[in-house]
This record gives sequence, structure tokens and C-alpha cells, in this order.
Amino acid sequence: MTSAPTLQPRFLPSRTELGLVAVGFSGGQCKDGVDAAPMALIEAGLITQLTSELDFNVHYDGQVHSYADLRPEHDPPHRGMKNPRAVSAATQALSAQVYAHAKEGRFVLTLGGDHSIAIGSVSGVQKAVRERCGRDVALVWVDAHADINTPESSGSGNIHGMPVAFLTGLAREEDKSMFGWLEEEGKVNLRKIVYIGLRDVDRGEKKILREHGIRAFSMHDIDRHGIGKVMDMALGWIGSDTPIHLSFDVDALDPMWAPSTGTPVRGGLTLREGDFIAECVHETGNLVALDLVEVNPSLEITGAQETVRAGNSIIRCALGDTLL
Amino acid sequence: MTSAPTLQPRFLPSRTELGLVAVGFSGGQCKDGVDAAPMALIEAGLITQLTSELDFNVHYDGQVHSYADLRPEHDPPHRGMKNPRAVSAATQALSAQVYAHAKEGRFVLTLGGDHSIAIGSVSGVQKAVRERCGRDVALVWVDAHADINTPESSGSGNIHGMPVAFLTGLAREEDKSMFGWLEEEGKVNLRKIVYIGLRDVDRGEKKILREHGIRAFSMHDIDRHGIGKVMDMALGWIGSDTPIHLSFDVDALDPMWAPSTGTPVRGGLTLREGDFIAECVHETGNLVALDLVEVNPSLEITGAQETVRAGNSIIRCALGDTLL
Amino acid sequence: MTSAPTLQPRFLPSRTELGLVAVGFSGGQCKDGVDAAPMALIEAGLITQLTSELDFNVHYDGQVHSYADLRPEHDPPHRGMKNPRAVSAATQALSAQVYAHAKEGRFVLTLGGDHSIAIGSVSGVQKAVRERCGRDVALVWVDAHADINTPESSGSGNIHGMPVAFLTGLAREEDKSMFGWLEEEGKVNLRKIVYIGLRDVDRGEKKILREHGIRAFSMHDIDRHGIGKVMDMALGWIGSDTPIHLSFDVDALDPMWAPSTGTPVRGGLTLREGDFIAECVHETGNLVALDLVEVNPSLEITGAQETVRAGNSIIRCALGDTLL
Ligand SMILES: [Mn+2]
Ligand SMILES: [Mn+2]
Ligand SMILES: [Mn+2]
Ligand SMILES: [Mn+2]
Ligand SMILES: [Mn+2]
Ligand SMILES: [Mn+2]
Repeated sequence: MTSAPTLQPRFLPSRTELGLVAVGFSGGQCKDGVDAAPMALIEAGLITQLTSELDFNVHYDGQVHSYADLRPEHDPPHRGMKNPRAVSAATQALSAQVYAHAKEGRFVLTLGGDHSIAIGSVSGVQKAVRERCGRDVALVWVDAHADINTPESSGSGNIHGMPVAFLTGLAREEDKSMFGWLEEEGKVNLRKIVYIGLRDVDRGEKKILREHGIRAFSMHDIDRHGIGKVMDMALGWIGSDTPIHLSFDVDALDPMWAPSTGTPVRGGLTLREGDFIAECVHETGNLVALDLVEVNPSLEITGAQETVRAGNSIIRCALGDTLL
Repeated sequence: MTSAPTLQPRFLPSRTELGLVAVGFSGGQCKDGVDAAPMALIEAGLITQLTSELDFNVHYDGQVHSYADLRPEHDPPHRGMKNPRAVSAATQALSAQVYAHAKEGRFVLTLGGDHSIAIGSVSGVQKAVRERCGRDVALVWVDAHADINTPESSGSGNIHGMPVAFLTGLAREEDKSMFGWLEEEGKVNLRKIVYIGLRDVDRGEKKILREHGIRAFSMHDIDRHGIGKVMDMALGWIGSDTPIHLSFDVDALDPMWAPSTGTPVRGGLTLREGDFIAECVHETGNLVALDLVEVNPSLEITGAQETVRAGNSIIRCALGDTLL
Repeated sequence: MTSAPTLQPRFLPSRTELGLVAVGFSGGQCKDGVDAAPMALIEAGLITQLTSELDFNVHYDGQVHSYADLRPEHDPPHRGMKNPRAVSAATQALSAQVYAHAKEGRFVLTLGGDHSIAIGSVSGVQKAVRERCGRDVALVWVDAHADINTPESSGSGNIHGMPVAFLTGLAREEDKSMFGWLEEEGKVNLRKIVYIGLRDVDRGEKKILREHGIRAFSMHDIDRHGIGKVMDMALGWIGSDTPIHLSFDVDALDPMWAPSTGTPVRGGLTLREGDFIAECVHETGNLVALDLVEVNPSLEITGAQETVRAGNSIIRCALGDTLL
């Protein structure tokens, strides 16, 4: 059971105001079902826990956004990307929604959906926090994957493997209907990214990570140092005066704890390590936004509920729930 | 396979004398079956292992005590407690049994039963060790739960969530038929308690832990520091000149390793960590008593045997079994 | 996905030349099926991964060797050993095959088969490396078991529990048809052995380990220090100027990750820890040979594939695959 957190956030005017955006979008990859995740997370009690136990004042429009009305009739691949216009339109709309919450000084919780939606959530938060605080956000990306493919380096063409490339400007596109809408104010500096949990990184991505000196903690690092030390290093890299956006792909967890996800990879975080990461980021007092993505309740039967519970647990930990 | 331990205990006159009390009692909570645990542990070979492999001389009356004859006909709730007179009578009888063993200088192994029985086992050991050695015991409580609710703070009224409150005097009751029998000589100082493995602590319990400065290592601490460092800190807090009573609730283990228990909580100790805790406490040379509680073989089918094996493994480790 | 390793090995003339010996031999123990492991590992894509992803030039005769033609018609127990002449003949033949590869300066990968085959693989590598480099190999033995029984101390008479005793000369036999062929040039110094992962060690073996001061890291040590520190200590003991033979028994892994093996023992390495050990040994630049043994695909249904995947993962990690 839970007590209300007491930590005063450094980059938010109030501890209690939380904007929630539920994104039922699956166009960044090929498996149906990930769009059902926000409702599954909510039905498992998320909003009640946020309000009754963690004392948040939740601003939520009551809808799961699929952005179906924005989907173009004709959306052929472009530079190998699948559904480029649909993903672009959805993330552009999401960016505006997230921006509106963040501009009000609210913590923003975005429930995916596949990880392509981070193009919207991160850019919206970045723009608002820059305007509000005059500072760039750091991006903590917890994932089995680096999601930093460019359209050209991607093997699959699935855009959920590219959000970091678009957010950092490694991938660019002039056409406003295909991420050309993404302006500099919404982008993230490569030096401000920290990966945690990587274990299935494409050959081209490894090259990008090395060439740009991007800070990344793989499962090997976690085994070597322990998660306690890794979090010290990860948060030390970011520094204590920087607002943080945490983008948590549930596939960072080992399939033993989160089997119901589109691209599971063995050898992942334990549930305890996942919660611990979220707790440590909370303890900085600098967290301003959280994405929880890639829960796909349709892929497993018993495993779906377990994955949903894991997702909610991570959200609660990031929002200040403590064991003691 | 096992070699006889060689460590000479500091607070016992002989390494080999062991008093075993089998407690088939489930009145401290609401699920049937936990009373079958002692027989399941014994049938899995426990006594043979203690005698043949670990060279103990086991003093055991051959009975599983349910204390059914002590159960009053009429036992309505009191201050919200369920079965208060039945639990009081059973733990009072157990306290005397345990005292008799401990007074003889025997190590006392109590097989539960639900965790309410620790009111009996700890008070009996404390009284005898004070008389025998002139020292207070420290209580190492390994559990997902703090079990420190008072009747008033408890939501459920189940007394297995209250033993630490009664043992420390946080909860009091004059009536001898409802724990009034518990005298000062059997109680434990709050500064002499160390919790390990906590992860499901009630709001009121968190308050108690904080206000009294009780030393507690949650799963978060274990993730941060690793179990090796946590045991150093836990045993350092107790000091090297103090007899130790280890009360091990099998629900401290993750349900992956010990599913067959009444109140399982995810995110728990691995079997390895559970064994490691028991090994470290053994290595102090100060262990004088052990409770192993909350195995409930009726709750699972395959999981029951696994939970029983986990329980026996912890007992063996606490009694000096080593890997090398 | 994988990039070709770039580390230049210290004791091999070329990074890319790899000799593969597939050993379908199960005579060192009593369960059928472990002879099917090499084909299962290969069918799961091992050779393709070695060639395409890790850029090895694989020297492989395309056969799984059962050494059936060397099996004597009559093979009664000797000093309690089961199938002594069959195991002796098979390992003698294997020793020559491995020697031939190692003498050419190739890395030698031996796929078992049960762990008795290490008598052949280690002796063949030792002899060749001594001739080629003038140095003794160190033996890193990753296993739930110490495999250091002598015929007399063994309870079962299964020779897969004795290879370290024969390889170190603790067990001796003059008769050339029963390991008398094993010459000094193929033996390993007891000071050059490091065990990792032990947790089921016979009483007699514990005595041997203690008396000879053999360096051994049990699961208890891994829990205490973490696998990162343990590998520092293990490799520090060996020193940086010593060629290493890694003999990896898949039963070192916990049955949760590698259930399909003949003598599973709970409380073992996680898959992550297994991979980490292999990665660390690779990083020394001193690895000259690897055995992967005791996968038995016939013992489980779903677990078989998982165990095979775990085995291949360990092989890839030892050969330079990295997460980043
Ligand atoms: Mn992912
Ligand atoms: Mn992702
Ligand atoms: Mn409990
Ligand atoms: Mn308890
Ligand atoms: Mn083994
Ligand atoms: Mn072995």
C-alpha cells in the first residue's frame, strides 16, 4: 500500500497536477493490439491509484486517441518507412496535446501505443519545458532496443524503431506530412540521451551509438555493476539540474515479467530492476514526463495481465510510490 | 550434498542439540492449509537432513500441534482482531514449548503455521535466552510484510499481520486470554529488530517504521546495494555479541520460487537471495532460533512442492549447510 | 544483431580460424539424449552465426562423432567407473582431433555431449598450446558441479563427474585403455583451475577443493559480491598472460533458463550471468578453447529449445558477440 509522495519536483510548479494522454496507436509497427494497452492499464486501476493513493489531480479527457481521422487514405512507404503519413499525423497531434499539458506545468503521462508515439510526447514536452524553464530535457530511454534507426538503416521499416533518430535529427524529412513538422524546439540533443537495458541493437545502430558517443547501459553493464551503480552513473551523466523525460518501453523487462509485448528479447531487466529505475528517476525530483509503451495485451493470455501490472507498477514507481 | 557444519555457536552450549516444534496452526489468517506445512516440510526429508547430513540431535515430540483443544467455543472479534482468544491460547502454549527447548540450551526450530505463531516462538526464546545468557535477542524478520499492525491499524483483523506489534509492546492488551499473558521478559526491543525483504507495507505500518526508526531493508535497498551489502548492514546493525532469532516468512521469496503461500507479493527475493540471507545469519555464530512460516501447500499444485523445497532449503542454510 | 569482434587474441595467430568438433557422446552418464545436442545447437543456426555474423572461418568435418566404433564389446565397471573403456577411447580420439585444430593455431570449439568429453578436449588443447606457445592453459570450469570425483569418491560411477580429477592427475590409471593414455603434457595444474557457479558439490569433493586450495566461486560468492566482482577475482587469479580453456556445463545455469540437462540444480546462474561470464572471458583476449556440454534436448519439450538457445548464446558471447 501506498503513501502520497512528498518530494517537491524541481521543474514543475506543483507536485499534484498530472496530464494523462491515452494513445491507442499501433501504426509504428505491425502487430495489432498495442492500441488496447491504455484501456487495459486504466482498467487495472491506474487512475484510481494515481488519485487516491498518490494524491494526483489527474487531467484526462477520458478518451483513448487512435487518431483514425488523421489517417490518410493512401499511405505508401516512403524511404522504406511503413505508414509514414499516419505515424506523422498521429505524433504531430499528440505533440500538441502533450505540449498543452506541459505548458500548464503539469507532469505528462503518455500511455502508448507503440514507441513511435514518443516522437510526439518527447517533442511536446521538450518545447513546453524550454519555454517554461529555459532548459533542455534529458531523455532516459529504457528499452531492449535503441530505436535509433534511420529510415535507411532500418531493416523492417517500422517507425517504432526510429523515434530517437527523428527526435535527435539524425533522421530528417522536409515534407511536413512526414515528420517535417518536427521543429528544432522539439528536438533532443544526442548528449542528453541515456539508454538503459539495451540488448538487441542493430549493427547500424551500434555504429551510430559509437560514432556519436551516446551514453548507453546495456544489460552487460547492469550485470557488471549492478543496477544501483548503473543508475548512479546514468543520472550522474545527466546532472542534477536537468528536467528528465523517461520513455519506458515495457520490452526492457525480461519476457519472464513482461511477455505480452511485440518484440520481446530474453535477458532483460527483472521487474525489480524496472521498478528500481523508475524509483531512482523519481528521486531526482527532476522528472517531468513519462511514456509507458509497447504493452500489447492481445499477444498473451495470462501474460497480458502480468505485463499490464508490470506497466502500472513502473508508472507508480516513477510517480513516487515507495516500498517504505 | 552436505557436510556437517563446524561453526561453534556463541550462545548455545552445544552445536548439535536442536528442539523442533511443529505448529499446524492457521488461525492468524483466513486461508486453510497453512497448518499442513510442518508435515509437508518433514515429509520432504527435513528431519533426515538435519540428523544425517547436518549431524543434529533433534528433539521432537513427533506431533504437529494444532492447539485445537485450546480453542474457545466462542471467539468473537475483539478490537477488530479475528480469533483473538484462539491465537492467544495457541501462541501461549507454543511459547512454553519453545521456552523449554531454549532453556535447555537447544537451538529452536519452529515450523509454522501462519506468522502469528511468532508471538509464541519469539517470546519463548527471548525469555529463555535472557535467563540463560543475560542478553536480549535481536529479531531478524524476513518477510514481504512488516507484520507490525496494531489491532486498530489493521485493515483485515488477521493477527498474522500483528505479531511484531505485540512482541514489541506497540500493541497491548490486559486480558490474559488475549495476549495479556505476554510478559516483559518475552518482549523485543524495537531497536533490536531488522526487517529484510519488505515490499507490501501498509500506510499505517510505514508510519510506525518511520516514527520508531526501525531498521528495515526493502527490496529497493536490495536492488540498490545487492544482497551481500544489505546483509553486512543488517548484521552490522545488530552487532556481533547478540543472540539472533530469525523469523522467515516464505512470502519474502518471489512467487516465482515460493508461490504456495497465502499472501504472495511480486518483486521478492530470489531463492538464491533467501538462502544467502540464511547462510549469512548462520555465519554470525549467533543464531539461536528459527521460524519458517506461511508455507501453504494447499494453494498450488506443482508450486506447493517447490515452496516446500524452498522452505527446507532456507532451514538447512540457516543451520549451517554450505555450498562448498 | 551482431558485429564481428575486433579483439586480437593473444595466443592465437589469427582471430578468425575456428576448429569445431561435434561430439555426440553420452557414455559419461546414464541419460540418453545428450548426444543429440551438437546437432540441435547447429540446427539452431550456430555455424551460420559464427560465419556470417562473427566472421569466423569454421573448420568442421561435418560429422557428429559418437565414437561408436571405438566402443568395446565388453566394458564392465572398473574401480566403480561405468563404461570406462568406452569413455577412455572416445576422449582419447577427441583429444587427438582437438590437438590437431589447436596445433594449427585455431580456436577450438567442442560441442558435447556429456562433460566427460572434457578429458579429451582439455588435454588436446593443453598439449598443443604448450607446444605452440610454451605456456600452460588455465581452466575455467563453469558448472553446478565440481566434476572432481575420483573413481573411489564417486557415488554414481558416472565419469562425467570425474573429468577434473583425471585432468589434474588426482585420479590416475596405468591401463592405457582406461585413461592411461593421458600424458603429463595434457594435464592441468590444480592452481590453474577456477570454478564458477558451484552449488551441488559432494562431501568428498568439498574435501578435495579445500585440501588443494582450489579456487572456486560458488553461487553464494556470486550473491555476495555480484557476478561483476566475481569475474574480476576469477580472472585476476588466472592472470593476464595465460591462455584460457573455458569448459561450460549448461547446468551452471538455473533450470529456469536451461531446464533440459541431465542433472539440473536449482539456485543457478541467470542467463544474463552465464552470458556475462562468457563475455568477460572473451574480453581477456586469452581464450583459446571452449566446451559447451550437457545440453540434453530429449529431456524437455519447450525447455529443450530454450536450453539450446541458451547454449548458443553462451558460445556467441565467448566468441566476441557484444550487446553494444
Ligand atoms: Mn523495445
Ligand atoms: Mn522501444
Ligand atoms: Mn508475509
Ligand atoms: Mn509474515
Ligand atoms: Mn554439471
Ligand atoms: Mn559438468
